[in-house]
Amino acid sequence: MYGLIGSLKAQAGQREALLAILLENVDTMPGCHSYVVAEDPEDPDVIWVTEVWDSAGSHRASLALPGVRDAITRAKPLIAGFGQHTETRPIGGHGLTIPA
Amino acid sequence: MYGLIGSLKAQAGQREALLAILLENVDTMPGCHSYVVAEDPEDPDVIWVTEVWDSAGSHRASLALPGVRDAITRAKPLIAGFGQHTETRPIGGHGLTIPA
Repeated sequence: MYGLIGSLKAQAGQREALLAILLENVDTMPGCHSYVVAEDPEDPDVIWVTEVWDSAGSHRASLALPGVRDAITRAKPLIAGFGQHTETRPIGGHGLTIPA
Repeated sequence: MYGLIGSLKAQAGQREALLAILLENVDTMPGCHSYVVAEDPEDPDVIWVTEVWDSAGSHRASLALPGVRDAITRAKPLIAGFGQHTETRPIGGHGLTIPA
């Protein structure tokens, strides 16, 4: 499996709008076992995203899905910058699913 | 919801044994929506753990479960240290479940 732990910073006041866009496609991405978006309780603009995919290829392919491409286009103006970007190799756990 | 993103470092050569212990209780912890353990591809001793709970209280309560207490006792000698510890407020996503 292939995992990502990342953070991004929304433009001031835009976190809620950015979260909504990030959540649009979560249940329809082939090879995605887990995709969780979270607020940082300490910083009103920061979002954490943790992802588990069957492979890095599935993650890359997801970026070309029409719904994801459209979401990225609308998300970009709301993003002030990126923070942590950590690749992981998930071994197992609870809550890992495969979309229908 | 309550989330945690954390890393820990195993004693040299003990990552696999530590991962196995961390995975023992993942499907039986009340209030746990997601619990993923992963290897760091860049460091042979580092483990990443990402967790989603219905509340911080459920996370705290899990540490008192007999199976978890036993796992912690056996894990401690295999842990060299702790790294990142980030609390989050998960909003939603894919792969969030509630154990039976």
